[in-house]
Amino acid sequence: MMITTVFKKADISNLKNTYRVAVVLDVLRATTTITTALKNGCREVIPVADVDEARKLGDDPNVLLCGERSAVKLPGFNLGNSPLEFNCDTVSGKTVVLTTTNGTGAIKMAAKKSGTVVIGSLLNSKAVAKKLLQFNGDILLVCSGTRGNFSMEDTLAAGFIVKEFLSLKGIKNYSGQEITKQRSNVSDVYAAETPIDNNIENNIVLNDSSVAAYRISLFYNDNTLDALYDSLHGQKLAQLGMRHDLTYCSKLNTCNLVPIYKDGIITATT
Amino acid sequence: MMITTVFKKADISNLKNTYRVAVVLDVLRATTTITTALKNGCREVIPVADVDEARKLGDDPNVLLCGERSAVKLPGFNLGNSPLEFNCDTVSGKTVVLTTTNGTGAIKMAAKKSGTVVIGSLLNSKAVAKKLLQFNGDILLVCSGTRGNFSMEDTLAAGFIVKEFLSLKGIKNYSGQEITKQRSNVSDVYAAETPIDNNIENNIVLNDSSVAAYRISLFYNDNTLDALYDSLHGQKLAQLGMRHDLTYCSKLNTCNLVPIYKDGIITATT
Repeated sequence: MMITTVFKKADISNLKNTYRVAVVLDVLRATTTITTALKNGCREVIPVADVDEARKLGDDPNVLLCGERSAVKLPGFNLGNSPLEFNCDTVSGKTVVLTTTNGTGAIKMAAKKSGTVVIGSLLNSKAVAKKLLQFNGDILLVCSGTRGNFSMEDTLAAGFIVKEFLSLKGIKNYSGQEITKQRSNVSDVYAAETPIDNNIENNIVLNDSSVAAYRISLFYNDNTLDALYDSLHGQKLAQLGMRHDLTYCSKLNTCNLVPIYKDGIITATT
Repeated sequence: MMITTVFKKADISNLKNTYRVAVVLDVLRATTTITTALKNGCREVIPVADVDEARKLGDDPNVLLCGERSAVKLPGFNLGNSPLEFNCDTVSGKTVVLTTTNGTGAIKMAAKKSGTVVIGSLLNSKAVAKKLLQFNGDILLVCSGTRGNFSMEDTLAAGFIVKEFLSLKGIKNYSGQEITKQRSNVSDVYAAETPIDNNIENNIVLNDSSVAAYRISLFYNDNTLDALYDSLHGQKLAQLGMRHDLTYCSKLNTCNLVPIYKDGIITATT
C-alpha cells in the first residue's frame, strides 16, 4: 500500500486515483478547531466553503456561526476560528457551522477523492494513525497549505501521522534503500500512485512528499511550536496577537478523538 | 530579502514576482550531468526541451547529442543522461546538446522569472551558495520535481544551498521565532513574496518550502545517498541498474564550478 501526501489542496485535483481514506490537515487552524469543538461537546460541525451559505444555516438557536477570512472573525458571527474560543461553555450541545479561508474547502475537495475523510491535526496525530489501521487500502494525506502554497505546519502533522502509522505497523526506520531491495523483483517500481506488490514486507511505500513530511517530524520531534513559528502563517498569527493559538495548536497527541466527515457533517469518533 | 523555494517546475508559473537570480535543481540527473560535463572540459551545454530540436543541432562533429526520456538514452544519441558518461574523454572541448524529461524544461521556465539562472546540484551546493552572495536581491530555488510532483532529491539540494547561504551570512540557527520578534514592527509580515523590511537583522526570511528544505538537509546531513534512495525516482533508477549514478549524484560539495544559463547556453563560472 501507498501513503501519498499532497502539500496543498489544489494538488488534490491532479491525483488520478481514488483513496480508501483521506486525512485533511489545516493545523493553523481549521482542523485543530474542529477537533477541539468536538472534544468540548459540540454535537456536530458543518464545514461550509462560502460565507453566505454559512449565514443561511445560522438562523437557529442551536447553531453557532463560526469562521474567519484573513485570520479575522467574520462580522456578526458567534465565534472566529481560534480553537481557544471553542470551549465547553460555548459549544456544548451546539451545531457549529464553520467557514474558513482554506481548510473547509480542502475537506470538500478531499471528499471527492476518497471514501472516508478524517480530520487531523497535531492534537490527534496518533489517534488518526490508529484510525487509519482500520482501512485496508491506499491513504491520502492532504495538507491544506497556506495561500495556495506549501505550509510547514500541515506538513509537520502529516509527518507525525506517517510516523505513528509506521510505528503501529512495526516499522521503526523507514528506509528507501530497504524498499529498493524488497522491490527488486517488482516490475513497476515507479508510479507514485500504484499499489505495491504484496511480496514486500509490511507492504508500505511512501511517496516523496510523505517521506519528506516524516523526516520533518523527526527533525522537530517534540519542538512542534518551533515548527509553527517557522511557518509564515504562524508568524502572521503571532503578529495578529494569536500566540496562544500557536501554542495550543502545537500540542501533540493531546486528544484521542478522530473527527470524521460524512455527507456534509463532521462528528466525533474515537 | 526572501529565499523562495518551489517544489516543482509547474509552480514557477504561479509566482507573481520576478527574481534577481534563480537556481534550477534536477539532481537525478540533468543538473548533476550539466555540472559534470562542464567540470570535465566541455565547452558549453545547450539545454533543449524537445528531441527534434536537439537532433537539428546535432549535425556537427563538435556537438554531442545527449539526453533521455523515461531515464533511458534516446536512439541515435551520443550519450544518455548519466553524469558518469560525461567524462573528459567524451566531452572535452565539445558542445553538449542536452534534452531531458524534466530538468531542461525547468531551466527555460526559470529563465522567464529571473535575471540570472544558476544550475545547482548536490555536487556544487556550497559553490552555488557562494555565487548567490553576488546577487543583492530575492532568490528563487526551483526544484524540478519528478513527474510533476515534489521530489526528495531536488529538495535536499535546495536545503543544502539554503544552509550554506545562511552560514555564509553568519546565521547558524535560522529560527522563525526570532524572525517573528524582529518583525514585530513590520506591517506586512505575511506575503511570501514581499521583500522584508531592512530593520531586520541579516534581512533574510525563508518561505515555508525553504525552511522545510533546510530542515530536511539538516536531517540527512552527510547521509545524502539515503535521501536519494528515499525518493521514488532514485528507486526507479536503481531498479534500472543505475545505482552508481545515485552514488555519484549524492556526492555533496565535490565541485567548485557554478554553471550559468544565459541566452540559451550554459557555461561554467567559479
